[in-house]
Amino acid sequence: MALLSPSRRLRRTVFSEGVEAQGVSAYTVYNHMLLPTVFKSVVEDYHHLKQAVQVWDVACERQVELRGPDAARLMQMLTPRDLRTMQVGQCFYVPIVDETGGMLNDPVAVKLADDHWWVSIADSDLLYWIKGIANGWRLDVLIDEPDISPLAIQGPKADDLMAEVFGDAVRNIRFFRYARLEFNGVEMVVARSGYSKQGGFEVYVPGGPVAMQLWHALFEAGASMDVRAGCPNLIERIEGGLLSYGNDMTDDNTPHECGLGKFCDTHDALGCIGRDALLRVAKEGPTQQIRAIEIIGDAVPGCDRWWPIIAKGKQVGRVSSAAYSPDFKTNVAIGMVKMTHWDPETDIQVETPQGLRDAKVYEKFWI
Amino acid sequence: MALLSPSRRLRRTVFSEGVEAQGVSAYTVYNHMLLPTVFKSVVEDYHHLKQAVQVWDVACERQVELRGPDAARLMQMLTPRDLRTMQVGQCFYVPIVDETGGMLNDPVAVKLADDHWWVSIADSDLLYWIKGIANGWRLDVLIDEPDISPLAIQGPKADDLMAEVFGDAVRNIRFFRYARLEFNGVEMVVARSGYSKQGGFEVYVPGGPVAMQLWHALFEAGASMDVRAGCPNLIERIEGGLLSYGNDMTDDNTPHECGLGKFCDTHDALGCIGRDALLRVAKEGPTQQIRAIEIIGDAVPGCDRWWPIIAKGKQVGRVSSAAYSPDFKTNVAIGMVKMTHWDPETDIQVETPQGLRDAKVYEKFWI
Repeated sequence: MALLSPSRRLRRTVFSEGVEAQGVSAYTVYNHMLLPTVFKSVVEDYHHLKQAVQVWDVACERQVELRGPDAARLMQMLTPRDLRTMQVGQCFYVPIVDETGGMLNDPVAVKLADDHWWVSIADSDLLYWIKGIANGWRLDVLIDEPDISPLAIQGPKADDLMAEVFGDAVRNIRFFRYARLEFNGVEMVVARSGYSKQGGFEVYVPGGPVAMQLWHALFEAGASMDVRAGCPNLIERIEGGLLSYGNDMTDDNTPHECGLGKFCDTHDALGCIGRDALLRVAKEGPTQQIRAIEIIGDAVPGCDRWWPIIAKGKQVGRVSSAAYSPDFKTNVAIGMVKMTHWDPETDIQVETPQGLRDAKVYEKFWI
Repeated sequence: MALLSPSRRLRRTVFSEGVEAQGVSAYTVYNHMLLPTVFKSVVEDYHHLKQAVQVWDVACERQVELRGPDAARLMQMLTPRDLRTMQVGQCFYVPIVDETGGMLNDPVAVKLADDHWWVSIADSDLLYWIKGIANGWRLDVLIDEPDISPLAIQGPKADDLMAEVFGDAVRNIRFFRYARLEFNGVEMVVARSGYSKQGGFEVYVPGGPVAMQLWHALFEAGASMDVRAGCPNLIERIEGGLLSYGNDMTDDNTPHECGLGKFCDTHDALGCIGRDALLRVAKEGPTQQIRAIEIIGDAVPGCDRWWPIIAKGKQVGRVSSAAYSPDFKTNVAIGMVKMTHWDPETDIQVETPQGLRDAKVYEKFWI
């Protein structure tokens, strides 16, 4: 693995001190911020995530805050998902598109009030797009990055751990809903969500001393549950088909190509900036789409660039994420595949750094 | 130093293959792309840069392309620098500000034609801001990230090396001007510019095989000049007072705070989005400003977070970049200092991870 030079520009988080004390062994950079990627090893972290509970510093999921009379209108301008039915207390996964329907980010929108939203972003400066749109359209709304740092609690024992710290009320929070709960006298938004398929929560933690107090409280309360520091796990997220913006999709892709058509109510998303382009896409359908891909044989190396997908000597797509899955005993991967080859069980080949490998297209991920 | 996990999201460049073959030893992440930070060692790279010539993969200085009838109008909306006198063939360093005068980036604008510009960006997704503004203001302009990767040739022998590859025409290129020169039948924009004070060029290299052909040609032509792969050097850039967006300034800062007032012709920059706010700032002056700071004594560790600047027990600023300079035999640093303590020769203290250190404010950098 390469070395990462320190600099202020790669921002530390309110939890970095805790992450270091827990023995983080590698990072990535996400929204100009440090995001842990490995503690013991990717494989050990993976097994532990599936059987216990982990605390993740995902402060790099920065918030973009929309406040003001035009906040709801602006939010709908950003996404083809119909937000009219969305209630205060709900979180929506919302593809964000530009005027051509190209994806700019795939965040979770948190509706705090009709005129107050947080957008919990993937890795791109969505703040800049939203500020630009608000300025150009002369909207009556304030856009900012508030001092809020998500902390994820993920794994099968997440409910038990969170109940110890926030009380049994957490057990009643439904999927992609949130409650406002107190810790040490500070109210926090606690949502049932997170970037794993093992269940759990994301706490939107305000800055200041309370952040590390919460970190320590979780580790104290979870001692008997084998709680550990963790992070989004490459293997588990590929198995679960959790896409990563910048890896599996870019601004070249429409939501439909990314299999996110179910989050596009384009006909009803009046005001969405990409509506015209996406109505056309919805009508004709995409010509390539994200698929689960199995790469047969030995463990593949780290996927640090697009690996071409080949059929009969021609390129018919590309793999963007891949890892060996100990549970499924094969290489799980995510790739964009042309419609000529996207049917389930289609045999393809993947050009890895170790040469051409046999592979197969699946419709569903390993969940 | 921490380890950096590989992923497609941290994009490789058209020159990565060459960088690896030359023995890169550490990276940072810049505009979602790998930027080398060390080859032999920061100190060895530093001495070599000052006496020979280096080839830098700065592909991470991504371009935002503005094309169309409203391109020039949009460009002026983005910056308080008056662009009316700018000619085709010139490059301008342009602070980019939002409606409050907060800095969003500090790129170099390259005027290719009245209706065609490149903006060679620092580390933030300026594409998103420019696209948002163009959309909201209904401007007749196309905004995109073209497949152009800057390659810098820096050091005292840069002219000789470039003349070998592009011909003697490079010697006549004036500072912050460019010429269109051919290499292997491909026309490239070659500018006299770069992120060092040692002189040199930036070549805007189109994608495809020609990129690595140029890389190899430079190393072949430069064998007798001790050409090496290099990268922006932390020590040299601090000595020279070259600011780094995200390190030394953020969107909280105005250009005036960053000592970039000389690039703000706010009165004449009609149409600049931040004009109203900056007219106010220009009138009243900033209350804090970037200064050269000497931290006295032994070499300081890497500056990976803001170090508070203290005077009489109170915080009066912060250091954002620091390194030991072998040539000046002291620690050179960049910091933001309040007006109460920004006069030259003011004694201050800096809170480093190794404790409080005596320090001094200077007006000028080490050049």
